[in-house]
Amino acid sequence: MAKENTKLKLLTAGAKLVHENGFNNTGVQEILKAAGVPKGSFYFYFSNKEEFGLDLLDFFMDFIGERLDKHLKDPSEASLESLRAFFREMGEVFKLKGYKCGCPIGNLTQEMADLSEAFRLKLDRYMNDMKSGIASCLTAAQAKGELDASLGPEELADFILNSWEGAVLRMKAARSAEPLELFERMLFTHVLKR
Amino acid sequence: MAKENTKLKLLTAGAKLVHENGFNNTGVQEILKAAGVPKGSFYFYFSNKEEFGLDLLDFFMDFIGERLDKHLKDPSEASLESLRAFFREMGEVFKLKGYKCGCPIGNLTQEMADLSEAFRLKLDRYMNDMKSGIASCLTAAQAKGELDASLGPEELADFILNSWEGAVLRMKAARSAEPLELFERMLFTHVLKR
Repeated sequence: MAKENTKLKLLTAGAKLVHENGFNNTGVQEILKAAGVPKGSFYFYFSNKEEFGLDLLDFFMDFIGERLDKHLKDPSEASLESLRAFFREMGEVFKLKGYKCGCPIGNLTQEMADLSEAFRLKLDRYMNDMKSGIASCLTAAQAKGELDASLGPEELADFILNSWEGAVLRMKAARSAEPLELFERMLFTHVLKR
Repeated sequence: MAKENTKLKLLTAGAKLVHENGFNNTGVQEILKAAGVPKGSFYFYFSNKEEFGLDLLDFFMDFIGERLDKHLKDPSEASLESLRAFFREMGEVFKLKGYKCGCPIGNLTQEMADLSEAFRLKLDRYMNDMKSGIASCLTAAQAKGELDASLGPEELADFILNSWEGAVLRMKAARSAEPLELFERMLFTHVLKR
């Protein structure tokens, strides 16, 4: 119990630092200090920093996955408005961070996909999980007659996810909600129009 | 002349390393070594690593700007096919890199926008420059009757740029051309349909 608690403290403190400053720019000592955990504990839980980073990906994806499930999972409830609600909830998270930080899965793709094959494979899998959440919502919307049934939901979901990741990236350059609002406007009035 | 040559050597070597490994993950010593320039030279040309990074942004943007100008600048020549040619040329650059590295302006936005206001402001400006290049092509396409004239070219160009940046990001996770091909397909058969 205490053991799991220490590991969770390291992941929670590490997630905040890596989200704000990047993975390579965050040192193990810094994580230990922020977690208030004795020096040396880190290598008791993680064999190296890469392994810690791979666990961080799970930690970040749990947060996103909960929100995907909440809005998009139940096919009887899911609709285009659910998709809008999902993106708006994520937008609220970004607002609380002052439109900094952005999507940790996107950030770590930029930073780590080329540097570690283990990172890349897990990031690719989590991108596909996000895509699948969106695709199942689009399928439900098609069943409800909200969306042109001739559009392939998987392909459309991939395009939507990638465009969203790009909007979140641009948000960091602009440090404003504007790219997210434009994404929502273009998605719902133009891309997903029937 | 020799002076400018040394500076250019540092920027060329630094651009390659930063593009491949990230800014924080690339050390000054490593850049000096790759440039084959004597230790100590770095601080003769740049007051610190941040200033070097800001010059690197110009270096990267020169490359992109040349291609924007080539395809999109001349309103009498620019059309939706020019826009496709621009994205295809960039896709060829990514292919040569094995679908690694991605867009340096996007990468450095992810990595540096929150860490340095000077970076963020320059990155935001360059994002807007890319947007303007695309917008002027869209305006030309509207004048030629290729595109619905009721769409705002600036707003549409922002959406296209952000979606492109997201597709390039996803390319790094997938390490394949597929996200770029999907972007092109969705853009030209769905988003920009008349």
